[in-house]
Parts: sequence; structure tokens; C-alpha cells
Amino acid sequence: MGLDALRAFLDAEFPQVAEDLELLDVSPMHLVMRALVHDRHLRPGGTVSGPSMFALADVAMYLAILAMIGPEALSVTTNCSIDFMRKPAAGANLRAEARLLKLGRALAVGDVLIFSEGGDDPVARASLTYSIPPAKG
Amino acid sequence: MGLDALRAFLDAEFPQVAEDLELLDVSPMHLVMRALVHDRHLRPGGTVSGPSMFALADVAMYLAILAMIGPEALSVTTNCSIDFMRKPAAGANLRAEARLLKLGRALAVGDVLIFSEGGDDPVARASLTYSIPPAKG
Amino acid sequence: MGLDALRAFLDAEFPQVAEDLELLDVSPMHLVMRALVHDRHLRPGGTVSGPSMFALADVAMYLAILAMIGPEALSVTTNCSIDFMRKPAAGANLRAEARLLKLGRALAVGDVLIFSEGGDDPVARASLTYSIPPAKG
Amino acid sequence: MGLDALRAFLDAEFPQVAEDLELLDVSPMHLVMRALVHDRHLRPGGTVSGPSMFALADVAMYLAILAMIGPEALSVTTNCSIDFMRKPAAGANLRAEARLLKLGRALAVGDVLIFSEGGDDPVARASLTYSIPPAKG
Repeated sequence: MGLDALRAFLDAEFPQVAEDLELLDVSPMHLVMRALVHDRHLRPGGTVSGPSMFALADVAMYLAILAMIGPEALSVTTNCSIDFMRKPAAGANLRAEARLLKLGRALAVGDVLIFSEGGDDPVARASLTYSIPPAKG
Repeated sequence: MGLDALRAFLDAEFPQVAEDLELLDVSPMHLVMRALVHDRHLRPGGTVSGPSMFALADVAMYLAILAMIGPEALSVTTNCSIDFMRKPAAGANLRAEARLLKLGRALAVGDVLIFSEGGDDPVARASLTYSIPPAKG
Repeated sequence: MGLDALRAFLDAEFPQVAEDLELLDVSPMHLVMRALVHDRHLRPGGTVSGPSMFALADVAMYLAILAMIGPEALSVTTNCSIDFMRKPAAGANLRAEARLLKLGRALAVGDVLIFSEGGDDPVARASLTYSIPPAKG
Repeated sequence: MGLDALRAFLDAEFPQVAEDLELLDVSPMHLVMRALVHDRHLRPGGTVSGPSMFALADVAMYLAILAMIGPEALSVTTNCSIDFMRKPAAGANLRAEARLLKLGRALAVGDVLIFSEGGDDPVARASLTYSIPPAKG
């Protein structure tokens, strides 16, 4: 799936989050996405909440898998390990860079770096595993 | 901090999520919380989204730490590893059982089991680490 | 598989580590094991090395799965997240308590607490995921 | 610390593992290391054991931190999340590529990719967190 097909899928299947997410780039085993940060994503002090960053990492990797195997095989997140390393910059959007490290028949594994836009140091990193259901005959 | 103080803290500091969370029990190093599941927490198929379960685990452990050290020391989540093990039951609220395993001067570590209410098997488990800032003199 | 069958399996299949491991108890979804600590497991300062604790958690959970599904299905570790929380006591053996939280057809998930024998506070906790290969027809 | 100083440190402080490890390259926030695979690292089937790969990731990241902050501050591993993605090639040594993502005053975070030498796809990935003790006045 290319950028346009992934964007249409995002709008159709994740209407609750699609308006905050912009797909920037996709290539084999890689995907880059922007998250628009609004007040509802913030914690006291103006920082982006952990669950918002978790959601961004999860959607970015989910779409990176979809881009490789197509929209029929609905993979399911089975594990995520996420490190919150720096406080995101106030008033900045986030950029997620996802890379797939393994795309097997039953499991996919990858990791994601999240940056505040304009910053060079990652604010969070996540590794995620997805279970891919068997294709129907 | 006891149940009432924690509930007041939750209402004051986390107004965006407080209406969906009910603090059920707190004891030394343990805390039990219910999450009311609404449509906005659901993914296609009627299952609770991963970020919603992540947020529940994070808040439950955060409050378990607060209950031990008080509201002045605002700890920060540094790592979460979460396993999604079963599809939550449709139409059921969630129950989170948090236990603190270490409460040091600089780091706190604990884990959380999440159940669909009425179910015996956990739908998710999470382990979380928090950095506790040094007390101000 | 009961205690005797698991001990025989451990001796036969893991001869390199079996002499340091004592299986103490097994029950449905639970297993308790002791690790004898020798000089070769120690790091400077007299503490047990991280890889030694990782190996203990991995073997304990592997046997807990075997106890449930038998020795034919050789499961494979796909993920481990381990927290080192306290320095193990010098000169004390370790005790690992493993509990299976999910035993599905394709994946098993569980967690392990590791204690210095005689201590009440866990020195480490680990969660582990195993891939279970399909049974041969 | 440069390559020579790190190699001397490795020989002096980790004599049990130093003979199996070759430091290949170090640069700011990066380090590359080879692990010589011997029979004692193997599991039935000829594959490298999980604890051996965990140990490699741990030492590589530990030295990457040392290279930046020097040998006085002895950091301690507090968390490791490792994914085993592919079966290492039989008869091949391993190569670990470590990158530091955060080097703070109290915590360091990084990740490691492990390859079978000669292979392009990683056999394992790990993220690790270290606690850095306060400098003595």
C-alpha cells in the first residue's frame, strides 16, 4: 500500500485519531508520521501525555505493517515496551519514525523513535510486537 | 494518602480522565481501580484500545506511588512494558490491580494486571518504572 | 508433566545449567525454582550478574510452559522485559517464582519474581513471551 | 575513553567474558562489538542461547556508556527489554551495534541490534536502561 491508500485506510478505520495524524512518508519497512498536538494530549506542565505517545507509536507501526502486507490481515498488538526519555517541547508537534525489523508469517517486530518536531534528540522510543492472523484460505 | 485524598487528587489533576476512573481500594504497595469503558475507548470490533489500557495501567501505578510518598513528589513514567494477552470482553468495564515492587529514593517499579470485570483471566499486564525527583530542601 | 518428569527433562536437555538449578515446586500455571549461586555467576562486588538472572527467569518460565503442554512442543522465547530492582544478597542463592498468565495456541505469556533466598523483597522481575510452534499432524 | 582504554577495561573488569568479546568500533554514542560463539553458548539445535545474547547486548551498551562518561561512574542495568526475532546462523559469530539515545545525569537509555556475522537481518534487538550513580564530590 502506498501513501494514498494508507491515508484512506487511516481515515476510514481510525476516524477518532485520523484528524491528528499526518502520514509523511512510507517506504519498504519504514514509515514516518506526524502527530498534531492539541490541548487534549497534554498533561499538567504542558507536556504530551504518555498514552498519546504510546498511541502514536502503535499507529505508526501498525500502518508500517499494513503497508507491507495489505489491509486484509488485521494484525494485533501483543507487546509494547516504551521508554520516555525527555520531556517533549511545549507547543511542538511530534514526529514518529517507525522501522520494521521482522515481518514473519505470525509475528512482526519493529521500533519507533519519537521526536518533538525541530528537535534532534528523541523524546521516546518504543519497540512493538504484532501478531498476524493466518491468512484465510 | 488514603482513598479520599487520592480521589480528590485525581479529580483535580487529571480532570480529562477522572470521570472514567473509579478508585476502588488502596493499601500499602497495592491499589485497585475501575475504568468505565465508553465508545471513545473502543476500536473496530468493540474491543478496548491499547492506549486506553496503557493509560489505565499508568494512572493506577502513579496513584499507588502517590499513596506511599504523597502528592508533592511528582514522579515521571520512564518505561512501560505492556503485554496485551486477550481481547477484553465487549461491554464490560476494566479492573486494574497495581502492586509496587520497589519504592526507592530515585526509582519506583511495579506491575499491573488488567481484567475485564467479571473475568478471571487478565487481558493485559504491564510493568512500569517511574523516576522520582529529589525532594526539594 | 510433574516434578520428576521436569527434572529429568532439565537434566537431559539443559546439562550446562541443570546442576545449578533445583526445581522446588510445580502446580498448574506456577513453578518455583532455586538457582545455586557460584563464583562464575558473580560480577565485581559480589552481586549476581544480570545474564544469570535472565537465564533463571527464562528457564523457570520455559519449564512452567512445558509442565502444561508437555515436552514435544518446544517453545521459543520471543521477548523478555526484565527489571533489576535490588542488589542480590551476597552469598545467597536465588529463588524464582514463575506464573503463567496466558497459555494460548500460539503464544504463552508469564512473569517471574526473583528473590535472594531469605529475603522478602524481589531483586528482579521479568515478563516473558514464548512462541509455541504448531503441533505436527 | 577510546578503543584501547575500553579494551583494557574489559580485560580487567570482565575477565570471564572478555576472551569471547572483541571491541570493533567506538564513536560518540555508538559502539560495535563482536561475540565469538563457542559451544558453551549454544542451545540444542546449534542456536545461540538467549542469555548469551542478553549478555552481549548488556556489555555492549555498558561500554558505550563508559566510553562517554569514563570508568569511575559504574552504571547499573535497571531494565532490559529484548526481542528474539530470528534464529542465529549456526557457526557464525555475532555482531552487536549499540547506540545511546539518552545520556542523562541519572539515567542512560539505548538500544542494540544483534546480527549473525554475514547476515543483514537482525536476530535480536534490545533496549536497555542504566542508572548512573551520583558523582562523588
